[in-house]
Amino acid sequence: MTVHQTARLGTGDDLRTAIRSGAFTGHTAGLAPGRLQCNIAILPAKFALDFLRFCLRNPKPCPIVGVGETGDPTLPTLGPDIDIRHDLPRYRLYRDGHLAEEVTDIAAHWRDDMVTVALGCSFTFERALMAAGIPMRHVEQNRTVPMYRTDLALERGGVFGGTMVVSMRPLRGPDVPRAVEISARYPLAHGAPVHVGDPAAIGIGALERPEWGDAVDVAPGETPVFWACGVTSQNALLSAAIPLVITHAPGHMLISDIDENSDQPIWKA
Amino acid sequence: MTVHQTARLGTGDDLRTAIRSGAFTGHTAGLAPGRLQCNIAILPAKFALDFLRFCLRNPKPCPIVGVGETGDPTLPTLGPDIDIRHDLPRYRLYRDGHLAEEVTDIAAHWRDDMVTVALGCSFTFERALMAAGIPMRHVEQNRTVPMYRTDLALERGGVFGGTMVVSMRPLRGPDVPRAVEISARYPLAHGAPVHVGDPAAIGIGALERPEWGDAVDVAPGETPVFWACGVTSQNALLSAAIPLVITHAPGHMLISDIDENSDQPIWKA
Repeated sequence: MTVHQTARLGTGDDLRTAIRSGAFTGHTAGLAPGRLQCNIAILPAKFALDFLRFCLRNPKPCPIVGVGETGDPTLPTLGPDIDIRHDLPRYRLYRDGHLAEEVTDIAAHWRDDMVTVALGCSFTFERALMAAGIPMRHVEQNRTVPMYRTDLALERGGVFGGTMVVSMRPLRGPDVPRAVEISARYPLAHGAPVHVGDPAAIGIGALERPEWGDAVDVAPGETPVFWACGVTSQNALLSAAIPLVITHAPGHMLISDIDENSDQPIWKA
Repeated sequence: MTVHQTARLGTGDDLRTAIRSGAFTGHTAGLAPGRLQCNIAILPAKFALDFLRFCLRNPKPCPIVGVGETGDPTLPTLGPDIDIRHDLPRYRLYRDGHLAEEVTDIAAHWRDDMVTVALGCSFTFERALMAAGIPMRHVEQNRTVPMYRTDLALERGGVFGGTMVVSMRPLRGPDVPRAVEISARYPLAHGAPVHVGDPAAIGIGALERPEWGDAVDVAPGETPVFWACGVTSQNALLSAAIPLVITHAPGHMLISDIDENSDQPIWKA
């Protein structure tokens, strides 16, 4: 995609058509502004009840915004014509906890026992923070937000558990309380931060070595602010080493038809 | 129970001990103030995934605040020592969609395939409204809040669906917007009202003939205000006519250890 083409794909409908056809396979950061974007996990029904339990017990990292019927690739509560087999720009298939394949369509992998779970995503609160004049360093530096393993224990749900993954954004002192207040308005997109300040206090060794994404500069006088991250759920799915799970590739989210300011993620005509 | 005994049972711990032993079998309205009370549904695991889908798609009437493991009667995310077999004052057993029995303990009915689902309850926002000086007519009149079937269609989840049940509280004009704002702060307890004013607009025939609870007086100049009601989920469970479901008896809720002002219903020591 050229920059020109990306800019033209401003609305969710255009973008979904381009993604469905395979014409757009890039990441979705900054696209279709105002539409709720979603982390996606697709797993066999026999693990779905446990995964929903796990997410319901860990609502900060794993805010459920949609669940499909078993074997049904549509998600009518998130939009009238979503087909999850085609509507992500890029997918990852994990078998027994290991990355097996990265693809741009999963029609060939869909099965009658598959259940789709959609979780909220940090793009929502980032857009709100930037709209309030709070800069996002990773956006300024054109990098992927840095993400870290922590020692914050999760509530177990059946076979799923582990520790929380967080994303970090360095903020100036006066922006910290504003960022907390604003992000708290989006409980379906990780809500308020889980930690402010000392990385070691939550088991993070070195900010310059994130486990996922890219390191960003922390300027003198800035404070690292940590939000619960959707990678937590992927991590829990991989650790459980279930036979097959399909997720979005990092940054390649589902663009739903839900207004990201909605208090409920239920699509109405 | 005498009034004296009820008043003494102000804390959740005392009350749970009394309920567990069978000494207290009354309704829980107004008891253990500040603790989140919960609607309870206990159903076979084979229907649990569908029921969670149904609740997740209808978060106003069915706000999930807890889910147990299959066959496990504890609910550690709602409190450290809850045992759902004993800890409701009164239960109802429904078989194939029909009321079979009302009991004060379900140890004899518990099975290895049972899953407990806890939903938020209107007591939470009612307490907040009364604390703000907004009177609740059914409390003044010592009645059960009136509840009505509506024609508001629910999102289906597997075998579960139907229409929404609402509760009604008549309010004076200036109290309506305040009640909306205050109850909106409790999304885990039905949140803001779903309708204000004309009952016929949501398919309610006559306010003086509620389907559940008791009619209350609506004074001249008052407006009926309708909130999504937890009976919606019971209704959906009965309509699906599954072989066995156990619920709390109306008004006889689980008293959790969660502060009702918590943004997340996850118990921490």
